Amino acid sequence: MKTINLDIQHAVYFAEKQYEALKDESVKALATLEEGTGAGNDFLGWLRLPSEMPADLVERIEATAARLRQNCEYVVCIGIGGSYLGAKAVNYALADSFDDFYAPKPNEPKVLYAGQNIGQDYTAQLQKLLEGKKFGIIVISKSGTTTEPAIAFRLLKEQLEKQAGKDAAKDLIVAITDANKGALRQMATEEGYETYVIPDNVGGRFSVLTPVGLLPIAVAGHDIKKLLNGAADMERETLHPSDENPAQVYARLRNALYQDGKKIEILVNFDPRLQYFSEWWKQLYGESEGKDGKGIFPASVNFTTDLHSMGQWIQDGERTIFETVISVRKPAIDHRVPMNASDLDGINYLAGKQIDEVNKMAELGTLMAHEDGGVPNIRIEIPTLDEYSLGQLIYFFEKGCGISGYMLGVNPFNQPGVEAYKKNMFKLLKKPGYTD
Amino acid sequence: MKTINLDIQHAVYFAEKQYEALKDESVKALATLEEGTGAGNDFLGWLRLPSEMPADLVERIEATAARLRQNCEYVVCIGIGGSYLGAKAVNYALADSFDDFYAPKPNEPKVLYAGQNIGQDYTAQLQKLLEGKKFGIIVISKSGTTTEPAIAFRLLKEQLEKQAGKDAAKDLIVAITDANKGALRQMATEEGYETYVIPDNVGGRFSVLTPVGLLPIAVAGHDIKKLLNGAADMERETLHPSDENPAQVYARLRNALYQDGKKIEILVNFDPRLQYFSEWWKQLYGESEGKDGKGIFPASVNFTTDLHSMGQWIQDGERTIFETVISVRKPAIDHRVPMNASDLDGINYLAGKQIDEVNKMAELGTLMAHEDGGVPNIRIEIPTLDEYSLGQLIYFFEKGCGISGYMLGVNPFNQPGVEAYKKNMFKLLKKPGYTD
Repeated sequence: MKTINLDIQHAVYFAEKQYEALKDESVKALATLEEGTGAGNDFLGWLRLPSEMPADLVERIEATAARLRQNCEYVVCIGIGGSYLGAKAVNYALADSFDDFYAPKPNEPKVLYAGQNIGQDYTAQLQKLLEGKKFGIIVISKSGTTTEPAIAFRLLKEQLEKQAGKDAAKDLIVAITDANKGALRQMATEEGYETYVIPDNVGGRFSVLTPVGLLPIAVAGHDIKKLLNGAADMERETLHPSDENPAQVYARLRNALYQDGKKIEILVNFDPRLQYFSEWWKQLYGESEGKDGKGIFPASVNFTTDLHSMGQWIQDGERTIFETVISVRKPAIDHRVPMNASDLDGINYLAGKQIDEVNKMAELGTLMAHEDGGVPNIRIEIPTLDEYSLGQLIYFFEKGCGISGYMLGVNPFNQPGVEAYKKNMFKLLKKPGYTD
Repeated sequence: MKTINLDIQHAVYFAEKQYEALKDESVKALATLEEGTGAGNDFLGWLRLPSEMPADLVERIEATAARLRQNCEYVVCIGIGGSYLGAKAVNYALADSFDDFYAPKPNEPKVLYAGQNIGQDYTAQLQKLLEGKKFGIIVISKSGTTTEPAIAFRLLKEQLEKQAGKDAAKDLIVAITDANKGALRQMATEEGYETYVIPDNVGGRFSVLTPVGLLPIAVAGHDIKKLLNGAADMERETLHPSDENPAQVYARLRNALYQDGKKIEILVNFDPRLQYFSEWWKQLYGESEGKDGKGIFPASVNFTTDLHSMGQWIQDGERTIFETVISVRKPAIDHRVPMNASDLDGINYLAGKQIDEVNKMAELGTLMAHEDGGVPNIRIEIPTLDEYSLGQLIYFFEKGCGISGYMLGVNPFNQPGVEAYKKNMFKLLKKPGYTD
């Protein structure tokens, strides 16, 4: 079932020549990816996650989620980077916009995040919120020694054991980590935590369709089977080289635009719930392509909000950008502009219309204005903001990223630059082994 | 009292020649600004807002805030762009990180935002949250006819009148608008709302120190006198040309880096509560400078979170960026890494340290790594995240923006490009007057 619609007619003519010239290269890059013959090919496990996901693993995840939902008012997901952004993106997209303001309901815990920063006040304030509350922990780390999540887990585990008792605590902690080695695996074995495996051949930014993303998403009450179905359908749709393969088209087009001098890609949404999906996308593309002195700079905006902030720059600034818009065809709730007798605000011409109709005309008006202003516009439409569509989007962007990175001539599956600050930090903190 | 510390030693040598060459120009741009002889000089009211703020206006704002605080569980601020971002930035920076999760306390309403998007579900979900709740509205619009806030106000006013009765509702609505003309002014007069004035000579993105920002900030329980004191001290500090004038130095340096090919400025924080301060800053610089085919592209990241997403690109991608870091010297709460007997996670070497000490070493390690990698680093340190420091930061960035825009050769106080999408939207929606 094809539901994502990729529209490139407002972008491709900006770099027609490059787009034509890159056809063969895009076919080749897709083949390199599918055949596993390129750089980083020991990290291609994500390619088959949707179609080869074991049914019993999904069921176990759902059972664990049900157990945590039953026993917790809050579930804290501890992880950073790829161990954080995927779950946050999906959970934020599917939540009520004001979800935080409602008290937890029975069997419906709030999902919170920790270890994704080293904010001292953030951590202290989180622990204050959890005082006297029934909470659980999902701790996600391949090694168990990454600084940010290690600090958060040490503190929250201590708090949970204090509040619930050591015995009960071990049933409220789930570890997602390496199959065999590492500190977190060892701790989980010693303490008797339930565990899930982060596959060796799936890098962090490609891990949302492993237990890393699936468990926190299921705990938030979302249907992970639908998410996987969406991804599996997109896996099939992007398998073979074709001008209809959306991932190949997207990868080819963004490389064409980049060759034409478009140095910044802005991921645009017209629904604020996609804000953290953009953050997930920024890691995916920034970390995969930003190396060897090259790579498109990924940025994001929430429209129409940011039409009143970044809109001016996008319309009239340096002509080095293109935008990729995710448009949600249909909102979830019927809601219309009411009529008003006085019409002082002059919007009776909108009365009776769905609010979203105004949003859609803002989107179309923006496309026209930006195109006039020299900004290529790639448009991705999904029917509605749900698990299935998000699953499709996730796999579409992952696949597009793999192809695009190979076309750019980088290894899209490593991240050597991420270590640089850590090494300095460890030296400054006099971590054993770094003090020379 | 000088508290902001601007450190340029890790940036200036990247563009030493340009920085030297731009000295006179930076002096001239500051004079043009202070003397009011440049483009857009009918929008320079913000320059003297802190020092010339009438004491009785501040007191009236505080009284209005106290009244709303006493009578509301929620106060919805309706506004977009400059009528939204300033208050959101300050309120978000000063709130408990998990503030949303606590029920409203007596005399401590939650401040919410509407009309900053056209999200149909967002609006419906907000109205659902407010069902049966005591709430008030601050509606902010120069004209009263801007589409997004007009729709939100029409809906929320109707809901408030239904829930509280029309008589009570009028005392729960405050309008911030033009002194004399426009739809919102007329409506406020007819309905009998309390009103505040948006000065004619202050543009939206420079309006946070007018009632536009001050009232929502006071309603959230923050001390607007301290905010204004911080801004007034910075006003004094940035009045005269000097190598010690931080606004002049910042403007001069970013123009030097831009001339050297640094096309993207990333505003960095190491405290997630500054996330919306970055959004405010993006409007300020993007809308002021992004015109005539030029202007630095403003982007932002939250570290260390985004060191695990955008970190790779920043370290190793195209060498066209520089970063400006806002560093908060001291967190509010004492919180330390605990000792653990087993030390399986290997972080006992941090035990007993403040968590923030790790954060600070991450910051320093990142500076070193990025500098090594060719990323100029401008560092702005504030002593603590409070009203006074935020007031300083706000005025510092505003002043820097005015100087920088003049150096770039644009009118930093207009935003002609923002109208483009609106005109198209009005045509598409068949707004009267736009149907030709």
